[in-house]
Amino acid sequence: MSETPSELLRLRQSIDNIDAALIHLLAERFKATQQVGHLKAELALPPADPAREHRQIERLRRLADTAGLDPVFAEKFLGFVIAEVIHHHERIAGERGPAGAAGD
Amino acid sequence: MSETPSELLRLRQSIDNIDAALIHLLAERFKATQQVGHLKAELALPPADPAREHRQIERLRRLADTAGLDPVFAEKFLGFVIAEVIHHHERIAGERGPAGAAGD
Repeated sequence: MSETPSELLRLRQSIDNIDAALIHLLAERFKATQQVGHLKAELALPPADPAREHRQIERLRRLADTAGLDPVFAEKFLGFVIAEVIHHHERIAGERGPAGAAGD
Repeated sequence: MSETPSELLRLRQSIDNIDAALIHLLAERFKATQQVGHLKAELALPPADPAREHRQIERLRRLADTAGLDPVFAEKFLGFVIAEVIHHHERIAGERGPAGAAGD
């Protein structure tokens, strides 16, 4: 099987377009969380905000449910992204003293 | 500190908007990969396509680099999503006999 069926090609083109959009949105999201990290460091705000994180999880689970996405996956996804945010903020904190914003 | 600074609120609103967009795009991506799963099952195509996956990784790393996103994170992100796709396809395969499409 060397030829890819046209229907599969069509679906893969859509998946590739969606992936490009996801990458660009994630880039934009990390730009915003980097700003949050610097802002929290400046204002000496605590790094984590469990109440905010709880609201985010609940909201994304609801949105996922409406959009036909598994809410469990939506929550896992947020956790995956937040882990990276924390990793970024640890770097910011390392550059400018104790700080770092989790979640956001 | 009970009042959230307005700059932090502004950034969090952007993050929430971006997250809503991400969730909806992910929902759309899984709709497409579900179709791929059914199509591959119908056509008895092999579940995994390592060449396709390799091209996806290279492309997303390039896109991430241009967008200012860590290419290592982009690759981890694709891995995270593909793991969920495989999980979905295992379910499809379980429903209709041996099949399942990895990656896509």
